[in-house]
Amino acid sequence: MTVLSELSEVLESRKSASADDSYVASLYAAGLNKMLEKIGEEATEAIIAAKDLEAGLTKNPAAREAFVGEVADLWFHTMVTLAHLGLGPDDVLDVLSARFGIGGHAEKASRTPE
Amino acid sequence: MTVLSELSEVLESRKSASADDSYVASLYAAGLNKMLEKIGEEATEAIIAAKDLEAGLTKNPAAREAFVGEVADLWFHTMVTLAHLGLGPDDVLDVLSARFGIGGHAEKASRTPE
Amino acid sequence: MTVLSELSEVLESRKSASADDSYVASLYAAGLNKMLEKIGEEATEAIIAAKDLEAGLTKNPAAREAFVGEVADLWFHTMVTLAHLGLGPDDVLDVLSARFGIGGHAEKASRTPE
Amino acid sequence: MTVLSELSEVLESRKSASADDSYVASLYAAGLNKMLEKIGEEATEAIIAAKDLEAGLTKNPAAREAFVGEVADLWFHTMVTLAHLGLGPDDVLDVLSARFGIGGHAEKASRTPE
Repeated sequence: MTVLSELSEVLESRKSASADDSYVASLYAAGLNKMLEKIGEEATEAIIAAKDLEAGLTKNPAAREAFVGEVADLWFHTMVTLAHLGLGPDDVLDVLSARFGIGGHAEKASRTPE
Repeated sequence: MTVLSELSEVLESRKSASADDSYVASLYAAGLNKMLEKIGEEATEAIIAAKDLEAGLTKNPAAREAFVGEVADLWFHTMVTLAHLGLGPDDVLDVLSARFGIGGHAEKASRTPE
Repeated sequence: MTVLSELSEVLESRKSASADDSYVASLYAAGLNKMLEKIGEEATEAIIAAKDLEAGLTKNPAAREAFVGEVADLWFHTMVTLAHLGLGPDDVLDVLSARFGIGGHAEKASRTPE
Repeated sequence: MTVLSELSEVLESRKSASADDSYVASLYAAGLNKMLEKIGEEATEAIIAAKDLEAGLTKNPAAREAFVGEVADLWFHTMVTLAHLGLGPDDVLDVLSARFGIGGHAEKASRTPE
């Protein structure tokens, strides 16, 4: 099972969690605008971190980690928004697969015995 | 192999392609600022599409497709930026796995036969 | 009369112009989503230009001009959006005045003879 | 004196204030990245507020105020960034004046006696 599929299951399971106990549940409770604000924030932070990485810091592991962490935050908040809207990562991956003529999901592959 | 891994290989292969023949190669040639502009644009378009989906259009398949397509564009341009900076989707997925205590990549799983 | 007031009048006058002859009229014809996409784009470009200005380019007049130009684009597209929604720069300046306890508009001041 | 000129003076005066006493001084102390994050955040919030205003809420004064407030936040944080980089609103207004062939600043006008 892929990381995105597992994360998707975690996000679904949080739909019945308490907003006090779970950051994801607090996002569901706050609603779509809050999720979209996070997408805008994390996109901005990823852009700034990429510029810091470019500005002579490429060999600095901390700058690389900072950029990767911001992209993770951005993907994460798009995943929460997809879940909130009744969608999931496979919907997005299907679009990317179709565009690039690539072969489908790991899950499908794993169903193929040989 | 997952869609993101396959897409990552496609993006790597475009590093030796001509900017005239390949959109991805044209992004590499244009450089980091162009990629980051695309991340900002696609994040904005995803936010707008999500609001259109929310505004009474939830049952409209076209509005759902539009939102999914914008998220695909956003993920795609973050993938190009990762590739440009010598990184890849596994770096991002490792962060997400660690945060959520989930199990690692499909590739790794598939290497473990039983 | 201030630049923003004059620009506001120009934007109002473009409401009756042809989209073929006027960029502003073409934005009105395209609608709110197009204007909001421009706000997202120009905010992103301003952020990138500010980082380039910071990265050792502060004394470079071209980098300063680039950043100022992006902020001008951003303010301009927010002005178009305000006009489209039946609002104007004075609505925004009133908020800023109230927040900072500052004195009101040049237009008002100019009405006060001494 | 225009609101933007007065606000610009307030922002300059905060350069010698304590970060504990003044939000603006706390932004100067936090540095450019923090200011740019605010520009990204406020642009996103303005976009979301504009979509809420469009979605049948146009006659709702609260939705109009919310959008105007987000644009004020966006302009304000660009003003802080300009000040931090040794620039000011007149640099931006000069660009807009030149583009639209409009007449210059209120301050200049007020210097012209008749």
